[in-house]
Amino acid sequence: MLDEARALDAADPLAGMRERFALAEGLIYLDGNSLGALPRATGPAVAEMIERQWGGDLITSWNRHGWIDSPATLGAKLAPLIGAAAGEVLVCDSTSINLFKLLAAALGAQPGRHVILSETDNFPTDLYIADGVARLLPGAELRLVRRGEIEASLDDEVAVLMLTHVDYRSGERHAMAALSAAARNAGALSLWDLSHSAGALDIALNASGADLAVGCGYKYLNGGPGAPAFLYVASALQDRLTSPLTGWMGHAAPFAFDGDYRPAPGIARFLAGTPPIIAMTSLAAGLATFDGVTMRQIEAKAGSLTDFFIACVEARCSSLALASPREAMQRGSHVSFRHPQAHAVMQALIERGVIGDVRMPDLIRFGFAPLYNSHEDAFRAASVLGDILDGKLWDDPRYATRSKVI
Amino acid sequence: MLDEARALDAADPLAGMRERFALAEGLIYLDGNSLGALPRATGPAVAEMIERQWGGDLITSWNRHGWIDSPATLGAKLAPLIGAAAGEVLVCDSTSINLFKLLAAALGAQPGRHVILSETDNFPTDLYIADGVARLLPGAELRLVRRGEIEASLDDEVAVLMLTHVDYRSGERHAMAALSAAARNAGALSLWDLSHSAGALDIALNASGADLAVGCGYKYLNGGPGAPAFLYVASALQDRLTSPLTGWMGHAAPFAFDGDYRPAPGIARFLAGTPPIIAMTSLAAGLATFDGVTMRQIEAKAGSLTDFFIACVEARCSSLALASPREAMQRGSHVSFRHPQAHAVMQALIERGVIGDVRMPDLIRFGFAPLYNSHEDAFRAASVLGDILDGKLWDDPRYATRSKVI
Repeated sequence: MLDEARALDAADPLAGMRERFALAEGLIYLDGNSLGALPRATGPAVAEMIERQWGGDLITSWNRHGWIDSPATLGAKLAPLIGAAAGEVLVCDSTSINLFKLLAAALGAQPGRHVILSETDNFPTDLYIADGVARLLPGAELRLVRRGEIEASLDDEVAVLMLTHVDYRSGERHAMAALSAAARNAGALSLWDLSHSAGALDIALNASGADLAVGCGYKYLNGGPGAPAFLYVASALQDRLTSPLTGWMGHAAPFAFDGDYRPAPGIARFLAGTPPIIAMTSLAAGLATFDGVTMRQIEAKAGSLTDFFIACVEARCSSLALASPREAMQRGSHVSFRHPQAHAVMQALIERGVIGDVRMPDLIRFGFAPLYNSHEDAFRAASVLGDILDGKLWDDPRYATRSKVI
Repeated sequence: MLDEARALDAADPLAGMRERFALAEGLIYLDGNSLGALPRATGPAVAEMIERQWGGDLITSWNRHGWIDSPATLGAKLAPLIGAAAGEVLVCDSTSINLFKLLAAALGAQPGRHVILSETDNFPTDLYIADGVARLLPGAELRLVRRGEIEASLDDEVAVLMLTHVDYRSGERHAMAALSAAARNAGALSLWDLSHSAGALDIALNASGADLAVGCGYKYLNGGPGAPAFLYVASALQDRLTSPLTGWMGHAAPFAFDGDYRPAPGIARFLAGTPPIIAMTSLAAGLATFDGVTMRQIEAKAGSLTDFFIACVEARCSSLALASPREAMQRGSHVSFRHPQAHAVMQALIERGVIGDVRMPDLIRFGFAPLYNSHEDAFRAASVLGDILDGKLWDDPRYATRSKVI
């Protein structure tokens, strides 16, 4: 299958994009769904911002270098990657904070409705935030149902349907357009967490009729560890919703220092504190790795890489059970398999230069970043995995210790 | 007075600290209260983190380089600068977000009390956030009184007294110990915003009996534009309070991906999203500029610089009215004067290499950072200001345009 991998790579219009990243020779990095690889342009861009802008122009940089506008500027740069218009996206805060803002705003805009509907298997941190919102706001309720029961559960109590586009474990993808329409027909708003799909799929927020979205800057968007997150509010909704986190950057006139809070018109009302400029600069370099690439190309390659990886693993490691959908259109850009010693298997892989991660208790997870992963990466990862499983190399006490993160 | 300035600088134990900063020769930077100057160590530290940690060690850096613990590690580094113990301070989110967390937590921990008490002239963004909390939580109320009426207003409805330690306009300093004690005697919690004092004064949170605090990383702490902020919760209170922003980093076991939210023991429950590592690295370099320096030395120099600056301005510009307290012990480390053409005067100063800022309508504001400003800076700034006022140089149409930020 190595020949097939090389043929696929030779025909890949994105093959040259790996040059945009500083990845060590020989390393097979399949964890860009957790932390995107370092773009070559990031270090120089951050150094320039620190030395010349902060160091040289100091406080005047807020105007001179557009720092103050960076949440909107980066939002406009990100918008086409997720099928939104400029003016509908802001880069700010963390995914958790942005989710809190939009959930509270959605409940506030839906009088007579008090339920946040989500699914039992949603990303736990999203459920924690929703649970926090429900505990905080009088009468609010977080209602969880299984995946197949979502549409039937959209009753007239539901204020907002909160879903993660791509499941963080299985990679299963929700039908965004169908579910957004079902929510709208039931009088509910739709809120999508794009953390596991932005930068990996051809997301069409506007065309899907999605109302609200949040997502993460440090996975497929390559913004750096803990990069600023983003939020999306469809333009028609912006003046109906207000953020509960009424910080000065969301004020209609932040530098007037008025006594009263007046939300800014449009998307800017969802800002809170001062934008983190060094982190924004790094995220800008991450977004620039998508320059000249279409999201259609990105999604096509995501499907090709993960299809090919599944084929290689199933050919080489017949005992492993696929824990992801078999159809590319039903997946994101990561694939998981079950193994009872998932953690030890992954440690053995990492030891041999194949970096994926684990979701306990028994999933080994491999993320494919269309910009820098190749079909040859997929082939080699499957081969190393086969060697480890054949030789029971994972059955080594060195690999027994659980680390905190991966 | 130049001789006096030089004599004061010659006797200054912190005079050598200016070498820790990359400030252009001849520039007089008096806006460290808005954006701290660039430490020389920041660029190299951030470059190392980006290239070697992110680029080289990728996802494994969360454990290998302690990224995951950085909110607590930096909190422990910051704690002695504000008179707190390690384990009482976290570096995370923005000041606005942290204020929201602690206000909501304080209201939640004070059943039967529903008032946030603050002062009319508090920093507007703090009032905006408090107003947002009051609108969000049933029955909660933001009550504003004048500075002289605070103690008398601490009745049995007050859940939390929220004050900014040093006023952003006048520089007036609140008596933290007396007001914290008054709040406690009245059954209220005290919450201090240290944005305009952390890194400039000898703050004694524990010794003052302060319950809660927040503050900013990008002013006197030199963390860089939009640096992560901090929060403080006195150890005795930590397990009584819970954050409304229940993100995964505040969970007792964030990587177990449990379905239910269980707040972490201790201060960690006040975390929300993933820490921003590039920004944290920059703030770490900012905090390191305080290595080997005592906060007693910092506060003594703040008083000396601002006393001397007031004397120089009053000697040279007799028409200007001081808008700050005359006693150093009643001030922070910035000084303001009134001028009807404040904005144009400041633009003329900036043109001549003296960078301060303006708070509308009529305040020109000068911040003195004890680590890098000198008495000679103070003398020269007053001289340039005198030249501008004597020659009416501010009366030039070039200076009439108001910028967005300063």
